[in-house]
Amino acid sequence: MNMQDIIVRKRDGRELGEDEIRWMVRAFTEGTIPDYQMAAWLMAVYFQKLSEKETFILTDAMRTSGDTADLSGIPGIKVDKHSTGGVGDKTTLVVLPIAAAAGVPCAKMSGRGLGFSGGTADKLEAIPGYKTSIPEERFFRQVRNIGIALITQTGQITPADKKIYALRDVTGTVENQSLIASSIMSKKLAAGSDAIVLDVKCGRGAFMKDVPSAVSLAEEMVKIGKSAGKKMKAFITDMDQPLGYMVGNALEVREAVDTLKGNGPSDLTSLSISLAGAMIFLGGRAETSEEGEKNARELLSDGSALRKFQELVLAQDGDPAFIDHPDLLPQPEAVREVVSGQDGFVTDVDAYKIGVLSRESGAGREEKGDSIDLAAGIELRRKKGDPVRKGDIIAKVYGKEEKIEGLPERIAGAYSFGPEKPGKDAMIKKVI
Amino acid sequence: MNMQDIIVRKRDGRELGEDEIRWMVRAFTEGTIPDYQMAAWLMAVYFQKLSEKETFILTDAMRTSGDTADLSGIPGIKVDKHSTGGVGDKTTLVVLPIAAAAGVPCAKMSGRGLGFSGGTADKLEAIPGYKTSIPEERFFRQVRNIGIALITQTGQITPADKKIYALRDVTGTVENQSLIASSIMSKKLAAGSDAIVLDVKCGRGAFMKDVPSAVSLAEEMVKIGKSAGKKMKAFITDMDQPLGYMVGNALEVREAVDTLKGNGPSDLTSLSISLAGAMIFLGGRAETSEEGEKNARELLSDGSALRKFQELVLAQDGDPAFIDHPDLLPQPEAVREVVSGQDGFVTDVDAYKIGVLSRESGAGREEKGDSIDLAAGIELRRKKGDPVRKGDIIAKVYGKEEKIEGLPERIAGAYSFGPEKPGKDAMIKKVI
Repeated sequence: MNMQDIIVRKRDGRELGEDEIRWMVRAFTEGTIPDYQMAAWLMAVYFQKLSEKETFILTDAMRTSGDTADLSGIPGIKVDKHSTGGVGDKTTLVVLPIAAAAGVPCAKMSGRGLGFSGGTADKLEAIPGYKTSIPEERFFRQVRNIGIALITQTGQITPADKKIYALRDVTGTVENQSLIASSIMSKKLAAGSDAIVLDVKCGRGAFMKDVPSAVSLAEEMVKIGKSAGKKMKAFITDMDQPLGYMVGNALEVREAVDTLKGNGPSDLTSLSISLAGAMIFLGGRAETSEEGEKNARELLSDGSALRKFQELVLAQDGDPAFIDHPDLLPQPEAVREVVSGQDGFVTDVDAYKIGVLSRESGAGREEKGDSIDLAAGIELRRKKGDPVRKGDIIAKVYGKEEKIEGLPERIAGAYSFGPEKPGKDAMIKKVI
Repeated sequence: MNMQDIIVRKRDGRELGEDEIRWMVRAFTEGTIPDYQMAAWLMAVYFQKLSEKETFILTDAMRTSGDTADLSGIPGIKVDKHSTGGVGDKTTLVVLPIAAAAGVPCAKMSGRGLGFSGGTADKLEAIPGYKTSIPEERFFRQVRNIGIALITQTGQITPADKKIYALRDVTGTVENQSLIASSIMSKKLAAGSDAIVLDVKCGRGAFMKDVPSAVSLAEEMVKIGKSAGKKMKAFITDMDQPLGYMVGNALEVREAVDTLKGNGPSDLTSLSISLAGAMIFLGGRAETSEEGEKNARELLSDGSALRKFQELVLAQDGDPAFIDHPDLLPQPEAVREVVSGQDGFVTDVDAYKIGVLSRESGAGREEKGDSIDLAAGIELRRKKGDPVRKGDIIAKVYGKEEKIEGLPERIAGAYSFGPEKPGKDAMIKKVI
């Protein structure tokens, strides 16, 4: 095997063999193939694309490049959930407790975030005492006992993907659907669940900007999952404006708790019910997705989901007192208000801009290893369709004084206003 | 400036600005831009190509990346000659003495070869005592005194090209016309002559396999040269079978001397006269190329070119005795004969196969830094169109016993035979 030949074959649009792809992934992970050859190959893939077969093999080669979780010791159909990421996306904190309350075992490993705000693991760290990292044996036992565990990735999950992604990130080769799909699915498949619900975000605040490209990515991921023997369902959901009203780690935990209490924003609540419904259906606890959604709604309203969340926090050494006393969550050094300069209606809140400003407030990372201000972030007081009067507080920004100083004007700039109430966008664009 | 942006711009098919290209070449040469980013950019260029303007700028950025020769102290129009490389190409050793004998100052720096046989610098080292490396001052003085000097590249000529080429070589990004043209022309322009004659080889033994692609490359190089203010002329010449009968360093010196004596093979002789004629014309020593060729023919037949070669050898500390006593050149450890298995005509000698086998005999390098057996190589006794009888010696292979052991059968395999004498191919396909 020779990497130069593999580069040239892909460059010339030919399909690679299984042995070539597996050898390449192994040799690159081990460091035998230098970065510059992999970079050239990735750019060739950008132009020539991967076939379905090549994508399946690449995914599996990355999946098996490191540790893989074996959840077979846990009874029941284990269901995982993955979001491609957006602004204010705290659905995992709501959806998993609902699904677990319905009897679907949820053994989820989450990553840390790079971008607008932290990943789920960062959000969990805003909970006083919560341990995101626990020994494997305890993780398994907890899922068996209470049906849910939510931790950071342990061990060496898909080191090949990690190394390839780091290279794509600096060589202009992120934007290829097969590479995106195989990267996500290699991690999901290594995490060992039997079924996976995908939430593919679509819009300005998401990686996929339009519905057709989000649908196409979702379809490819569903195919990969099914070819690996997993039950799959994917939702294409709106990310033109932020999800819910809170963006930032402690802020999002607060909003997730409100939602579990039944007092959450309608967009977050309805999306959570849809995702949980699909998990309940795939997990064999409902005959249809619709029945799953009905169950989810009940488990939210009767407090079962909130109790499951409380059990989860307790099991991972967190202090659940914050659930009734949100001021026990990390508190910001400073707060600044964003005031409306006009009357009318909010016609738009640009999720991308809010995401960038949230990161600047200290809620997200610019680079891997950067520290996060768990209390930082943005609280929207008005979203699309809300009426507004001059002088109203439309948002607040939290964080360290020196970081949030100039942000209110820029947050105001993420808003658009108009004299008429705009139409409502569908939260769920498509289900696959 | 940010290399990632430059990669993405090129990937998306946009034209880069002058400042971007110059910054990129400088930063890559200095090591600020890592190999993997340059590799991704090169692959993007493979697919999206470079515009004429980008190619001019890239060439100039590489030209000025290191030392450049200033030949202005030498009176007259200095003319350089470059061949894109082929099998048995010893024309420089014939053409330059002719042009110099016509009064055209030739101050040529040649590279070492990587491939089928050595470069001109390697061939010169087969001459007993010849110094391919002499101090700059002596180089200039020699050109002023006798009108010719032929040395290896001195100093740090185009380090950017060297570094970029090394990377292209292992990332499947050699085959892009603009990158090839700018690589060659950056070196030629840095070498400082006022006019350049290009010999673009075309056929199985050359980099360019067909006439249209060779013409296109030649046209691009001519444009680059003209845009830099140089007089340019390019020949597209045949490289389907080897040039002349000798392939290997000492062997080629011998054949070049035979040609300078007027006893050379007809293909080598006629090509040398055409190239020298163009140099004489561009150097202002003839009114037309045709007149230049006429002069060249005379300088060959009256012994002036041979005397100029002798002067060159003497000036660079060589012992010219080998001119009349070729056995003073390096002698091989062993010789093996290649015998014809049939009667008829030679219908083909595959230059590519002969090139590979010449390298295997020890005449060329697999990798930079490999040592060369100056006496090794292949002597063809029959070429296309020659009659042959079963048992005739059609070729000989020279070199170390263990290296040439199995070669005769494989050399025979480079030959094709038929019952009829094949038509003759034109040596010069086009002049630009």
